[in-house]
Amino acid sequence: MEVYRSSATLSDGRRLLYFDTAPDTGRDRWIDERGLGAASNASQIRWDALREEWVGIASHRQSRTFLPPADECPLCPSQDGRRTEIPAPSYDVVVFENRFPSFTTTATGAAVDAAPFLARPAIGSCEVVCFTSDHDTSFSQLPTERARMVVEAWADRVAELSARDGVEHVYPFENRGVEIGVTLAHPHGQIYAYPFVPPLVARIADAGRRHRERTGDCLGCSLLQSEERDGVRVVVAGEHWLAYVPFAARWPFEVHIAARRHVPDLAATTPDERADLASTYVNVLRRFDALFETPTPYIAAWVQAPVHSGRDDVHLHAQIFTVRRAPGKLKYLAGSESGMAVWVNDVAPEDAAARLCG
Amino acid sequence: MEVYRSSATLSDGRRLLYFDTAPDTGRDRWIDERGLGAASNASQIRWDALREEWVGIASHRQSRTFLPPADECPLCPSQDGRRTEIPAPSYDVVVFENRFPSFTTTATGAAVDAAPFLARPAIGSCEVVCFTSDHDTSFSQLPTERARMVVEAWADRVAELSARDGVEHVYPFENRGVEIGVTLAHPHGQIYAYPFVPPLVARIADAGRRHRERTGDCLGCSLLQSEERDGVRVVVAGEHWLAYVPFAARWPFEVHIAARRHVPDLAATTPDERADLASTYVNVLRRFDALFETPTPYIAAWVQAPVHSGRDDVHLHAQIFTVRRAPGKLKYLAGSESGMAVWVNDVAPEDAAARLCG
Repeated sequence: MEVYRSSATLSDGRRLLYFDTAPDTGRDRWIDERGLGAASNASQIRWDALREEWVGIASHRQSRTFLPPADECPLCPSQDGRRTEIPAPSYDVVVFENRFPSFTTTATGAAVDAAPFLARPAIGSCEVVCFTSDHDTSFSQLPTERARMVVEAWADRVAELSARDGVEHVYPFENRGVEIGVTLAHPHGQIYAYPFVPPLVARIADAGRRHRERTGDCLGCSLLQSEERDGVRVVVAGEHWLAYVPFAARWPFEVHIAARRHVPDLAATTPDERADLASTYVNVLRRFDALFETPTPYIAAWVQAPVHSGRDDVHLHAQIFTVRRAPGKLKYLAGSESGMAVWVNDVAPEDAAARLCG
Repeated sequence: MEVYRSSATLSDGRRLLYFDTAPDTGRDRWIDERGLGAASNASQIRWDALREEWVGIASHRQSRTFLPPADECPLCPSQDGRRTEIPAPSYDVVVFENRFPSFTTTATGAAVDAAPFLARPAIGSCEVVCFTSDHDTSFSQLPTERARMVVEAWADRVAELSARDGVEHVYPFENRGVEIGVTLAHPHGQIYAYPFVPPLVARIADAGRRHRERTGDCLGCSLLQSEERDGVRVVVAGEHWLAYVPFAARWPFEVHIAARRHVPDLAATTPDERADLASTYVNVLRRFDALFETPTPYIAAWVQAPVHSGRDDVHLHAQIFTVRRAPGKLKYLAGSESGMAVWVNDVAPEDAAARLCG
């Protein structure tokens, strides 16, 4: 599949990209006439010396848009005189910079150098990815070709953002459902470019490095092979991807979709791998949505290698998980999880896999 | 304050302790006549090789008691023919083993030794701490003397559980509010004894060790002194404890209550320190409850040194935080937090401190 990209600039200077299956769609000729003023952004990252981790402080985000009615959706195309974030009257897949970003190239948060108090402006990027112009659908319902376009857009963004000065990690993800705080119902995901290696990726890279030193093998490859051999937690065995509930799953329903080939990030995948990913990914999301009578809230998180370190120690995979443990019951991150980082999962991973395969 | 302890055995074999300010209250003569059968418990811990962390798998907990009506509260004393978890018709502070524990001395979860798949029975302990027999109050409303008894009970439990074979860490905490999944409204907390060092404590111990190697000082002592000197985030400056919003707070409202003296855990505190803690702790909780028109949901988590390692690298403190960021708005742990362990806080720590001091 050939995917063509064209770009536009929103009225406050933010960049927007249209992804299309044909060249010269002319979508980029539509002008954003809203006359938005530049959004101020005092985002900062602060060093948590107790855990040796960076924390984002983004107090300007308290006033961000919260669940607007469908006829005011900012992610629908501009139509019938109503102007949205997308100037064109139609689109397939679109990516643009968030107006209320936690990380941005223009962050003005103060730098602090008074150890143990350290802070920096939250340089980076927060992009929004609209999967479709259809407000009332979801990723699991996308035709495979459209899902493939999203995968192509991810790969494009990972390559471009990784090349930016100061970016240490790129993170495509989707939050879906009000139960996890989603503020816009229109099917969309996000891509963060962090100015540091996120704690989770740092831990996975450390574990990968130690495993390689001990065994000579990639940890991600070893886990994938072990899960496939064990078999009881495998959900979808695709040509280029394996989807399974991990042996030590934290969430009631959690699936990892791992690349069969040892590959660090989405930008390094082949066209065949991206095509197979589109169908495997939608397959898994449909299984999530079939778990309960109402659509399953979920987080879909791409774990990629850091941009400048541990490139060989992190094996590309997505982690998809839901906070719903039973109809009407959520898995809360309470004292053990939020206070100690000890997860207690009430659903046996083998039972979760059986439900997802059923 | 002298605190006296007497013990009873519930009908399924679980242990219950009464804490009283007078000896010989006779509470232990009341018999649990419910004839409960022994609860089966197949809890297991599994090794997450990707993060090098243990995860609890406790599928038997799916059926646990969920928000019973007040007249069926299992944490009220047994009265008027209604039998609860507490056989006596009255109590001050009581501690007993949870009937639906994630960790227990009798866990029967299978051991697995097929690397990378490793599992062990979830040996440990989950105790429930009832702060008062009054169903309709909260920790923030306890008289200082009662709060002091809770502190004494914590210290007692930390000392005893730490001495048990296989226990690597003891964790007193309170979950408060339906917003964080609390299933029983009666004012109570919990104490977990883990068979491993929790990931959060391991990170804090590592950071503490590195800080000590670099500077010769305790990291917790340094942070406390820096916060007191900076002053803008201090909430309560007690004789033996300092309560402050940390410089790199993760949560909209987060307060750490740190011991002024370098001390590893609650069992190592002096009577004077425990007395001052009772009033400082209640002071902070009252400030949390004054933030909004309705009681603030919170998690109060004690960070103590591991039992057998890093004793000198972890400085005793409580972390108290709420998931509520504004009236009717929660801080969700969405893609960045749950997927990457990168927290983004929408409230500046200095603003949070000002609100808590107001």
